[in-house]
Amino acid sequence: MTTRIVELRQGILKKNDELARVLRGRYEAAGVLVLNLVSSPGTGKTAFLERTLRDLRTGGANVAALVGDLETDNDARRLAASGAPVRQINTHGICHLEAEMVAKHLDGWELADLDYLFIENVGNLVCPSSYDLGEKIRVALLSVTEGEDKPLKYPTLFNSADAAIITKIDIAEPCGFDRATALKNINEIRPGVRIFETSAKTGAGMGDWLAYLAEQRVHS
Amino acid sequence: MTTRIVELRQGILKKNDELARVLRGRYEAAGVLVLNLVSSPGTGKTAFLERTLRDLRTGGANVAALVGDLETDNDARRLAASGAPVRQINTHGICHLEAEMVAKHLDGWELADLDYLFIENVGNLVCPSSYDLGEKIRVALLSVTEGEDKPLKYPTLFNSADAAIITKIDIAEPCGFDRATALKNINEIRPGVRIFETSAKTGAGMGDWLAYLAEQRVHS
Repeated sequence: MTTRIVELRQGILKKNDELARVLRGRYEAAGVLVLNLVSSPGTGKTAFLERTLRDLRTGGANVAALVGDLETDNDARRLAASGAPVRQINTHGICHLEAEMVAKHLDGWELADLDYLFIENVGNLVCPSSYDLGEKIRVALLSVTEGEDKPLKYPTLFNSADAAIITKIDIAEPCGFDRATALKNINEIRPGVRIFETSAKTGAGMGDWLAYLAEQRVHS
Repeated sequence: MTTRIVELRQGILKKNDELARVLRGRYEAAGVLVLNLVSSPGTGKTAFLERTLRDLRTGGANVAALVGDLETDNDARRLAASGAPVRQINTHGICHLEAEMVAKHLDGWELADLDYLFIENVGNLVCPSSYDLGEKIRVALLSVTEGEDKPLKYPTLFNSADAAIITKIDIAEPCGFDRATALKNINEIRPGVRIFETSAKTGAGMGDWLAYLAEQRVHS
């Protein structure tokens, strides 16, 4: 039984990888930089993305977002307030987004008109790691309210990240956040990864993050 | 392919349910109250459990804990500081605990000597919902640093809970926690569930929680 499950799982992942490859080709041809945001539920992905969309639009960029959740369209409604086109993907019990879900929800969008497309994954530190969505940049988020040892406990997620975002730094002090340990743990799992220490509330760290995004677009 | 996966999944769940039933029988025969703690990573399950173990031991109870994580034995080491017997279960990539993992890790423990056994599940709001561990009480935790709409987004987890714990209330204010909305959302998904508002740091709410535990033991 275990062998059959492993085979089936590998079949699903292979199919996903193939579709992700097709998506990656579409993104590159359209010249849109695609990012996949992964974190625990409650890390503040939506607040961070809200702020990113708003700041990018203020700077004149064309941005859009897809947002995954098991249920509700709360996050899509929050993100749409930025003025960017946003679509909700409800997975109804599945703990991650798959390339096929993304492909379906791109229908009718002209990718060539976009500078950036953000995909906010389902809040989960395990399942999304295995599913390539064709993104160029995978972003792992960690908030100051979570344990500093999350990177050690969920190595696959942090190991596959191209950038790491520490969120909610405005409440680092009341949370007793141990910055040095968090940075050390991220670097242990993913040596040299770019780390941004941010607050969607105060805007701290957003300048560096936006500069990084612009730079990644140039090199994409 | 989808049909075969569903069948296999049902097969796994059925096997888990059967073993969970056996475990439940063992727990009842031994007179130990077993609780399964589920939440997002970073909600503060370990800090809450640390405090619970310490407070129960101070009150003269015999307690033990199993703690699930993908990797590391950090949490077991933290919990062991309470003086209680603690064992770490590393799932190596699996996003939840299963009855079989629990059964294996009980080897050599005399359940009849225990008053309470706590099982801290892998931090995940999706996967643990489907796996019965034979516990009498499933406890869903939510911290003031997470979104108040978590119960709506992860209905299965909150709907299957016997008690809900709000953690980290000492930092509710800097986090801008909307208490009324959180309580409303929990009640919408699980009407009438017992809710405890706690802080492992200050000890707030721990008295009510310990009284609830004692009461559940009497009625078990």
